[in-house]
Amino acid sequence: MFPNKKVQKLIGSRVLVEMKGDQAILEGVLKSSDDYMNLHLDESVEIVDGERKRSLGSVVLRGNNIILIIPVDEQSV
Amino acid sequence: MFPNKKVQKLIGSRVLVEMKGDQAILEGVLKSSDDYMNLHLDESVEIVDGERKRSLGSVVLRGNNIILIIPVDEQSV
Amino acid sequence: MFPNKKVQKLIGSRVLVEMKGDQAILEGVLKSSDDYMNLHLDESVEIVDGERKRSLGSVVLRGNNIILIIPVDEQSV
Amino acid sequence: MFPNKKVQKLIGSRVLVEMKGDQAILEGVLKSSDDYMNLHLDESVEIVDGERKRSLGSVVLRGNNIILIIPVDEQSV
Amino acid sequence: MFPNKKVQKLIGSRVLVEMKGDQAILEGVLKSSDDYMNLHLDESVEIVDGERKRSLGSVVLRGNNIILIIPVDEQSV
Amino acid sequence: MFPNKKVQKLIGSRVLVEMKGDQAILEGVLKSSDDYMNLHLDESVEIVDGERKRSLGSVVLRGNNIILIIPVDEQSV
Repeated sequence: MFPNKKVQKLIGSRVLVEMKGDQAILEGVLKSSDDYMNLHLDESVEIVDGERKRSLGSVVLRGNNIILIIPVDEQSV
Repeated sequence: MFPNKKVQKLIGSRVLVEMKGDQAILEGVLKSSDDYMNLHLDESVEIVDGERKRSLGSVVLRGNNIILIIPVDEQSV
Repeated sequence: MFPNKKVQKLIGSRVLVEMKGDQAILEGVLKSSDDYMNLHLDESVEIVDGERKRSLGSVVLRGNNIILIIPVDEQSV
Repeated sequence: MFPNKKVQKLIGSRVLVEMKGDQAILEGVLKSSDDYMNLHLDESVEIVDGERKRSLGSVVLRGNNIILIIPVDEQSV
Repeated sequence: MFPNKKVQKLIGSRVLVEMKGDQAILEGVLKSSDDYMNLHLDESVEIVDGERKRSLGSVVLRGNNIILIIPVDEQSV
Repeated sequence: MFPNKKVQKLIGSRVLVEMKGDQAILEGVLKSSDDYMNLHLDESVEIVDGERKRSLGSVVLRGNNIILIIPVDEQSV
């Protein structure tokens, strides 16, 4: 299964996304993704140093600034 | 709804945009966007450490340097 | 008006461009732009900490390293 | 053999991947890759300063933020 | 004249190129460029803090990591 | 000769490649390259502060994170 398909399969479930920039990690429910791995998350929360810092709600992430995507229920934070 | 469509739907309303670079956050009225998520904001303000620092007015943002886009009325800053 | 069109409309007038890299800001007369937002500026000046530091003259800017473009006459530096 | 083909050949075996961002190195079993070098790793572990720091399990890596990919059995960590 | 054409016109003459990464500036004779602004320089020299630090000779620069290109004879270093 | 062709011509010979990220320089034998300047190096060595620090063997480099490529026999390290 191609990486993009793996991401598509996660729609509807919670994901952790590490972004470039100020190195924040976001956790939220994946609403949609596209071929560039642009993501739309809902109920998203910014995580800094392992703590839930700020509730962001609905957010669109630019694919090229995503480092990695982790399905929440397949790993231990 | 694809991430790009989610952004298109925000045209006319206020958005927060986190950019790469000096990690500034911009808030403004979304005037237009395209497939690369290049954005045209109006009445934009640069936000540093949560404070409105500088009024920038009309500004064009390069899509690949956008980290994330948040609809202002769907979250609490 | 799409973001690229907004930029095209600025040809012939002065713009401020924030670049990635050493976070310099350039001001110059926009001579041309293309679909990637590559820009050709003339009479350009590098601005550091709000001061005009160095005259660069004619310069080509790579679009993907542009953070944002601001029309000079639509904002107050 | 083109670089992408070299990566495809590594599917099913362990790879080290150096990412941009917080400069973490991931090690995992390569499940799939595509033309953009987006990768899907399984049984992945984050490596910091040469030590296995955190188990991440299944993870999708965005290709443009990959610095380099090293087949584990072809080098000495 | 589009930005790419401006660069093409500089083939055969000396250019200054500011790169991302360790923020080095290279000066050299532009041998060729393409649509991505990948450049081939010859007789290139790395410039650090305004001083010619290291002779690199023939070098290929990846376009997306170029910040800006300045024709040497059109500006004062 | 276009930049990509210049790189293709180096297949089979040793190259220095400066990457983004932790600013490492790699030296190795260029096995293949493609239109994105993705590279496959063999017998590669990581060079830090001018010293050969770590042998990496076979490695695939993502083109967009390459700053520059230097043919080893055309310059003086």
